[in-house]
Amino acid sequence: MQPGSRNIRVTLAYDGTDFCGWQRQKGAPTVQEAIEEKLTRITGERVSAIAAGRTDAGVHATGQVINFRTRGRIPTERVATALNSLPPYTVVARHPQEVPEGFHARYDAVRRTYRYYLLGAGSSPFLGRYTCPAAWLDNEGLARMRAALPVLVGEHDFTSFAVADAETENPVRTVDAASLREKGPLVIVTLAANGFLRGMVRAVVGTLLEIAAGKRTVEEMEIILAARDRRAAGETAPARGLFLARVEYPEGR
Amino acid sequence: MQPGSRNIRVTLAYDGTDFCGWQRQKGAPTVQEAIEEKLTRITGERVSAIAAGRTDAGVHATGQVINFRTRGRIPTERVATALNSLPPYTVVARHPQEVPEGFHARYDAVRRTYRYYLLGAGSSPFLGRYTCPAAWLDNEGLARMRAALPVLVGEHDFTSFAVADAETENPVRTVDAASLREKGPLVIVTLAANGFLRGMVRAVVGTLLEIAAGKRTVEEMEIILAARDRRAAGETAPARGLFLARVEYPEGR
Repeated sequence: MQPGSRNIRVTLAYDGTDFCGWQRQKGAPTVQEAIEEKLTRITGERVSAIAAGRTDAGVHATGQVINFRTRGRIPTERVATALNSLPPYTVVARHPQEVPEGFHARYDAVRRTYRYYLLGAGSSPFLGRYTCPAAWLDNEGLARMRAALPVLVGEHDFTSFAVADAETENPVRTVDAASLREKGPLVIVTLAANGFLRGMVRAVVGTLLEIAAGKRTVEEMEIILAARDRRAAGETAPARGLFLARVEYPEGR
Repeated sequence: MQPGSRNIRVTLAYDGTDFCGWQRQKGAPTVQEAIEEKLTRITGERVSAIAAGRTDAGVHATGQVINFRTRGRIPTERVATALNSLPPYTVVARHPQEVPEGFHARYDAVRRTYRYYLLGAGSSPFLGRYTCPAAWLDNEGLARMRAALPVLVGEHDFTSFAVADAETENPVRTVDAASLREKGPLVIVTLAANGFLRGMVRAVVGTLLEIAAGKRTVEEMEIILAARDRRAAGETAPARGLFLARVEYPEGR
């Protein structure tokens, strides 16, 4: 780190609808590009942002965490307000804080929580961008989804739920929470883990929906997980229902 | 009415963001055109829809009411489901019911309720399409808005709050409810009346915001109303915070 520079952490909420995901790519709008351009405006220098989760195209966030280094003079406590005064307004910054120079939003994260929103009853012109329609879901289907979730908890090789063409990496993750709750017309699937493979939450939800619809049995969940083959699982649920809700760091970070 | 035809009433919810208001106009997307095209698809004939409130460009609805006549064969109870299976999905139909042949959604309505949503704290990437930002609103400002609202209740000439170029019509309306409540980060202004002049709710809210900001006193509300001159009132609040929430008909309609 350069002398005089600060490492600043910020929480981001964004509507992913009009972005091709977090990670910068040429000729396509990304959240990373949007936030880095805002950071350049408020600091007066080129800034690189590191995100805890590289969300895919169309995926939203309420609790993404990023960090960036700057020698700019803007007071840390003014960073969020300054970022939010600039377009695009579909990316909102909260809770700016100076962190130790070694803090890394992705490598230091110990727990990530994703929520997937299904619209379980009726339809809404306002929730369409943020939910997957599932008006056909009945109580029996919900019960089957609930029954299939505990299979995921624990340390497992989640290859069956990863994007088939994902870079080779260790496919073992530890899921410590997998739950489903109803809130008005919404059915919310929550998964928390030390990390997620690419496409993992959407493949899990797509599989759960097939179990709810009776296309697969509850017992198949265990067989699918053990197969370590993406073709064993269900279809990928649409991006628009998925939110990166929370990222956690060790105490004192 | 032609023999064998039914008069059907439907409630509509819509995201007004991408529409140039309710009323059909050449070369611009309107809610009326969208719903009439869907009705043509499901009935197999040209259909005209009558709406209780001709909402302006960008204004949303949760409880718009329309009626239309058809000789088509689709069962009344299937109308909403059929309409909602067709794009655009930002217009959603609910509660279809056959009504007496004389029922007219606009002329028969006796009470309309509009709600205006202000985002009173923080900012949100998800509420931007449905609220007007007002993070500067403090408790004192809210108290001043509340104090100014009762002046509007009763039978008044609302010319001061009508679009200046509105067609000549009787500018007297009876407001029977004018209230303000907080719900999380939202501040919701509710107005109910037998009818509203064009632009009336947004002119009222714009004026309330100027009172909240201290640009005008609470006492000015009465003076503005008595002036019967649009120039006396405040600026028009943006369309995106406004929702047509409810339309009521006499008992038995």
